[in-house]
Amino acid sequence: MKVKPCGDRVLVKIQESEAKTAGGIIIPQTAQEKTQTGLVVAVGTDKDVIKVKEGDKVMYDKYAGTQVKIEGTEHLIVKMSDILAILE
Amino acid sequence: MKVKPCGDRVLVKIQESEAKTAGGIIIPQTAQEKTQTGLVVAVGTDKDVIKVKEGDKVMYDKYAGTQVKIEGTEHLIVKMSDILAILE
Amino acid sequence: MKVKPCGDRVLVKIQESEAKTAGGIIIPQTAQEKTQTGLVVAVGTDKDVIKVKEGDKVMYDKYAGTQVKIEGTEHLIVKMSDILAILE
Amino acid sequence: MKVKPCGDRVLVKIQESEAKTAGGIIIPQTAQEKTQTGLVVAVGTDKDVIKVKEGDKVMYDKYAGTQVKIEGTEHLIVKMSDILAILE
Amino acid sequence: MKVKPCGDRVLVKIQESEAKTAGGIIIPQTAQEKTQTGLVVAVGTDKDVIKVKEGDKVMYDKYAGTQVKIEGTEHLIVKMSDILAILE
Amino acid sequence: MKVKPCGDRVLVKIQESEAKTAGGIIIPQTAQEKTQTGLVVAVGTDKDVIKVKEGDKVMYDKYAGTQVKIEGTEHLIVKMSDILAILE
Amino acid sequence: MKVKPCGDRVLVKIQESEAKTAGGIIIPQTAQEKTQTGLVVAVGTDKDVIKVKEGDKVMYDKYAGTQVKIEGTEHLIVKMSDILAILE
Repeated sequence: MKVKPCGDRVLVKIQESEAKTAGGIIIPQTAQEKTQTGLVVAVGTDKDVIKVKEGDKVMYDKYAGTQVKIEGTEHLIVKMSDILAILE
Repeated sequence: MKVKPCGDRVLVKIQESEAKTAGGIIIPQTAQEKTQTGLVVAVGTDKDVIKVKEGDKVMYDKYAGTQVKIEGTEHLIVKMSDILAILE
Repeated sequence: MKVKPCGDRVLVKIQESEAKTAGGIIIPQTAQEKTQTGLVVAVGTDKDVIKVKEGDKVMYDKYAGTQVKIEGTEHLIVKMSDILAILE
Repeated sequence: MKVKPCGDRVLVKIQESEAKTAGGIIIPQTAQEKTQTGLVVAVGTDKDVIKVKEGDKVMYDKYAGTQVKIEGTEHLIVKMSDILAILE
Repeated sequence: MKVKPCGDRVLVKIQESEAKTAGGIIIPQTAQEKTQTGLVVAVGTDKDVIKVKEGDKVMYDKYAGTQVKIEGTEHLIVKMSDILAILE
Repeated sequence: MKVKPCGDRVLVKIQESEAKTAGGIIIPQTAQEKTQTGLVVAVGTDKDVIKVKEGDKVMYDKYAGTQVKIEGTEHLIVKMSDILAILE
Repeated sequence: MKVKPCGDRVLVKIQESEAKTAGGIIIPQTAQEKTQTGLVVAVGTDKDVIKVKEGDKVMYDKYAGTQVKIEGTEHLIVKMSDILAILE
């Protein structure tokens, strides 16, 4: 199954990350910050608005977009306007 | 009876789906996720905005649109802007 | 008395309908669904926006518009943008 | 004193009306419905927007506009966009 | 001190008025109605929007604008869009 | 340090003022009214919108803008649209 | 890792500052005021809107933007419209 985002939306594969506290306890990044990072896997058709491309690593607000599970993996359909930055 | 959506609206036949939990219990998909999928059965007249066509399988936010029962089957009248993605 | 809707509004004669439950009890449709159907009896002057005509059977959100009683019969003055679909 | 409405506003003389219940009790119309009728007595200067004229009998939402008493009579200053229909 | 309203604002000298109740008790008009009247004493620079001039007696919503005391007298700085009518 | 307001913003030096009550007690003006006055000390770059200049004494809503302390003195960064009037 | 802000956003390195109270107690500036200052380290692609450049010291509302930690240092991704002033 292929998911093609509509309009100004972008499909992002959510990046799971971990972080060690000072005491060595591992906590998921999502518990630390208000942003999350992911990998763009598909973009919508609204090319004037969309400024990211497949393969870009992006940072977005943790509460933006709609989460979907594709073949067991967490993804996010998020509007371009909710993508905060590209990571290089 | 034929239902012709107005303007930028799309008529979608809601797709019933099931999912097995690890323990084998079947739960409807609607209880698992915030998105739902359906089949486009009619589109509105606003062709500049509508980017889906009859027969497309689409994903939309579970809380978008207005549910209607047509000849015993659950449908949804949803605005194009609430359709998140096309599934191929 | 003739009621001529202003601007992008449409005057709809609310359609009373009934439905039988499995056990044969009759319940009004308004108790079952979030949509209601009616017959367009007059349209406003904003012809660019209004895409229905007198005699059209339309479906609208049950909570849209303003209800008015005309010669004892329930009508609704509803904006074109709140009409969800035309029934044929 | 003459009241000249500004912009897209219309001055309406509120129509007092009565209605008999089945048991013959007279109740004012305002207690029955969400709309009220009145007579247009002056219109604002925004001629592109205003589609009613002095002498028109109009129907408006009971909660629209600002009520004013002119020489002891209840009037309403209401925006054109809140006038639902013209009665003929 | 001269107060020159900015943009689409108008400076109004609030009109104090009184009214007798049936029993002869005098109550200020502000306790009776949702509108208040005043005298325009200065207008802003946005001439396309402002349709009143110095000396006009205007009616406005009692809760619109910002009250200011100029040399001991109550005034109101109110946007043109909140002026309901001109009194003649 | 020089503070250059961005866009349609204006930097205002808040004017401290006092007022005597009938009994001679001095209370700060801010406790009396909903407006406050100040001196424009810098303006933003959006010249089409900004209609005040350095040195103008302006009146603004007490709750508008963001207060900042510059070299120990209270200032306000306020949008042009929140400046009510110029005092001359 | 390099963070490139999208659209009308700006990446700001939050400036840590301290202030002594009268009694000599050091309190962080963030506890004193509603504004915060920082250094622009990257700007988005929307050059028509963005009026700051790398190296500018800017003042912004403490509650604007989304905080991100980059290599252990607190940064903020903030929209140009939330930057109040440039400090020189």
